[in-house]
Amino acid sequence: MLEALKEKVYKANMELSKHKLITFTWGNVSEIDRETGYIVIKPSGVDYNKMTAYDMVVVDLDGNVVEGNLKPSSDTPTHIELYKAFKEIGGVVHTHSPFATSWAQSGRNIPCYGTTHADYMYGDIPCVRNLTEKEIEENYEKNTGVIIAEYFKDKDYVSMPAVLCKNHGPFTWGKDGFDAVHNAVVLEEVAKMALNTEVIMPSVERAPRNLQDKHYYRKHGENAYYGQ
Amino acid sequence: MLEALKEKVYKANMELSKHKLITFTWGNVSEIDRETGYIVIKPSGVDYNKMTAYDMVVVDLDGNVVEGNLKPSSDTPTHIELYKAFKEIGGVVHTHSPFATSWAQSGRNIPCYGTTHADYMYGDIPCVRNLTEKEIEENYEKNTGVIIAEYFKDKDYVSMPAVLCKNHGPFTWGKDGFDAVHNAVVLEEVAKMALNTEVIMPSVERAPRNLQDKHYYRKHGENAYYGQ
Amino acid sequence: MLEALKEKVYKANMELSKHKLITFTWGNVSEIDRETGYIVIKPSGVDYNKMTAYDMVVVDLDGNVVEGNLKPSSDTPTHIELYKAFKEIGGVVHTHSPFATSWAQSGRNIPCYGTTHADYMYGDIPCVRNLTEKEIEENYEKNTGVIIAEYFKDKDYVSMPAVLCKNHGPFTWGKDGFDAVHNAVVLEEVAKMALNTEVIMPSVERAPRNLQDKHYYRKHGENAYYGQ
Amino acid sequence: MLEALKEKVYKANMELSKHKLITFTWGNVSEIDRETGYIVIKPSGVDYNKMTAYDMVVVDLDGNVVEGNLKPSSDTPTHIELYKAFKEIGGVVHTHSPFATSWAQSGRNIPCYGTTHADYMYGDIPCVRNLTEKEIEENYEKNTGVIIAEYFKDKDYVSMPAVLCKNHGPFTWGKDGFDAVHNAVVLEEVAKMALNTEVIMPSVERAPRNLQDKHYYRKHGENAYYGQ
Repeated sequence: MLEALKEKVYKANMELSKHKLITFTWGNVSEIDRETGYIVIKPSGVDYNKMTAYDMVVVDLDGNVVEGNLKPSSDTPTHIELYKAFKEIGGVVHTHSPFATSWAQSGRNIPCYGTTHADYMYGDIPCVRNLTEKEIEENYEKNTGVIIAEYFKDKDYVSMPAVLCKNHGPFTWGKDGFDAVHNAVVLEEVAKMALNTEVIMPSVERAPRNLQDKHYYRKHGENAYYGQ
Repeated sequence: MLEALKEKVYKANMELSKHKLITFTWGNVSEIDRETGYIVIKPSGVDYNKMTAYDMVVVDLDGNVVEGNLKPSSDTPTHIELYKAFKEIGGVVHTHSPFATSWAQSGRNIPCYGTTHADYMYGDIPCVRNLTEKEIEENYEKNTGVIIAEYFKDKDYVSMPAVLCKNHGPFTWGKDGFDAVHNAVVLEEVAKMALNTEVIMPSVERAPRNLQDKHYYRKHGENAYYGQ
Repeated sequence: MLEALKEKVYKANMELSKHKLITFTWGNVSEIDRETGYIVIKPSGVDYNKMTAYDMVVVDLDGNVVEGNLKPSSDTPTHIELYKAFKEIGGVVHTHSPFATSWAQSGRNIPCYGTTHADYMYGDIPCVRNLTEKEIEENYEKNTGVIIAEYFKDKDYVSMPAVLCKNHGPFTWGKDGFDAVHNAVVLEEVAKMALNTEVIMPSVERAPRNLQDKHYYRKHGENAYYGQ
Repeated sequence: MLEALKEKVYKANMELSKHKLITFTWGNVSEIDRETGYIVIKPSGVDYNKMTAYDMVVVDLDGNVVEGNLKPSSDTPTHIELYKAFKEIGGVVHTHSPFATSWAQSGRNIPCYGTTHADYMYGDIPCVRNLTEKEIEENYEKNTGVIIAEYFKDKDYVSMPAVLCKNHGPFTWGKDGFDAVHNAVVLEEVAKMALNTEVIMPSVERAPRNLQDKHYYRKHGENAYYGQ
């Protein structure tokens, strides 16, 4: 079932390793097949060096395992909430990439200091609140997705394909798994440079809005002219 | 004697190099065979590129060399004290990995700022005190182990498999040598991110205790559900 | 047309990747053939792993594509302005290399703190101002080049082959594409060390002018004696 | 002439590259044959990828080229002064390794914060003063060596095999070229960790002297017991 998608999701997971976004098994990529509503996701806690496309797990939007011999990622309920809330996305990524995670641990949004950031993400990258005791006890992984969805309720999740979960780490999304990985790489670069920028200039201000607009919209939307 | 264990300890030592936790010969891994009470450990000051499984040294819990042509690691007496104090561990690691060592040099505990830390280590990672002049003169390496054991006397060394020795560097432990290396990798990532977190947000506070609990206990104990 | 130059420009672009100055497609190298006035430049947004010398695009100094199946880099108008203003240069590079970009995001010039800097670049590396709303709307990429040229109007662009564009990133130039890449590598090293220097010593002062002179002129000008 | 030594010096120079202490040609290793008083040194400004053992240059202690088709490193007069002042050393290294150079640019000595430092270098690593205008004009490279030698006149250059030249970078030395490279690697690690230590704990104090003594003397002198 969904063999081509399993192969694709496997490869997207291996990209996390190639881009040095993960240590050990600290990350996962999923992709959804919107026709069936089935999600293909990495199994939980399996060594990347031993993992094969065959190990990918198929789950439905209620979290039931549809196919697979292994348990799906423990973060699966978070992925599901994101797919339910963000109808236009096809892939989700979670990592503990060091710079993005450091911002998440600090509890701060990442201010937009330049065009590298604005080329991909419109405005500051948000850091969402801690879960309450009750939300943790009830269903930690699901509620992680719920509060992300809540935050984006009245915001554009397409122009901001990344979020930091306080004291935890980042989630990113995109058109498919590879696109979500691409955004996870961008986030880590942007997080690293934002830290360095503040060290160089503690009183630094955000990039002017008109420059942010220029860069975001030369790459996105109907007037985009970047790329082929 | 203990040929399989020598091979395993050799491989665990090579993992230190693969994970970039060591420069030159600045680290060592040992593992204990609890039945015989014999410890297999890396020889002192031997180039990792020239080292073989055959070079591993077997010592007993009194520090006598039982087998081996080379001198054991100069840190052997520290390893022995840890094996004596921590009955449930099977492996010990020492490195000078740069971020963990920087925290050790600073003399500070590493605060728990997030789930990456809480997934493996419960609470702040302690930095134990300097040895006194007398303790250094008497038996420096043994007393390094003694003060670690003293610190953990009334604490749980299983849920905190790492320590920093002030102005020196980290020791980690685990079920076996590989597990101790795994914890040394985690420690280095956590140490790096804690530094960055404080740079981003000097007034940052620890992760909420309920979040720490959630992450630690979803990976450890009878209610764990992470992994296969 | 200009097949040898295309091959050379392709190789110079691949050097950006080799020296880890770029993530994904975030950079471009061009070189000019001063006889014809034609510029060879990387195509826009093409994966470095799939790019070939054949994909390089030939444009003239008015920005018209003279040859090539792909769209030239979106930064082509900036390159053109630099070739028009700086008559002695043969190559131009743009990257988002992390340390240089962090300085650009901070809006600060990079002070000359040592001989590594002075060996290649005479004096502080300038950070030029943001474009105005009008300059962005009118022709963003062209005006980026115009304000760089304006800044250097009464200055020596040969002894300072680098500039930071505020909230954006660096441009460098040189005798040819490879030389411009060389300067981009130097800039990144210098940017990294200048940040670290200020962390170590917040009140640090510039290197003495006589030391800067010594190093710059032992490598450049008629009395140079470095190299073969 | 001195073919074996040329091969050795070539290999030691390549070690600089392997340990990532250099960018481009920014470093050099030499070794002296104390019998003849001849020094073998890297040629000036030659690409490490194209360099062979055959390219090494032989010079005497007056700086005359005894053999070789290429010009010796422009830093040769500094090496010569060190060989003249430090009778027991056999090798000298100069690099612009980023962390050591950042300390040199800051003008500060590197305080001894831990055992990694104390294992190799006894006490703080000194940063020597800038040359005067006259010293630069007269003979910059020679006088760089002269002021290093002056600093060590009444100090032990064997237990402190490294120095920082203000606003420039580090020199290290040792029994031979490889040993000097080894010390250059240690210096870079120590410089990196000292910076991080101060970021973690701005008010940090040096490692206790008794701990420094213990580590230095377990590796050096007649009572050493580290290694085989």
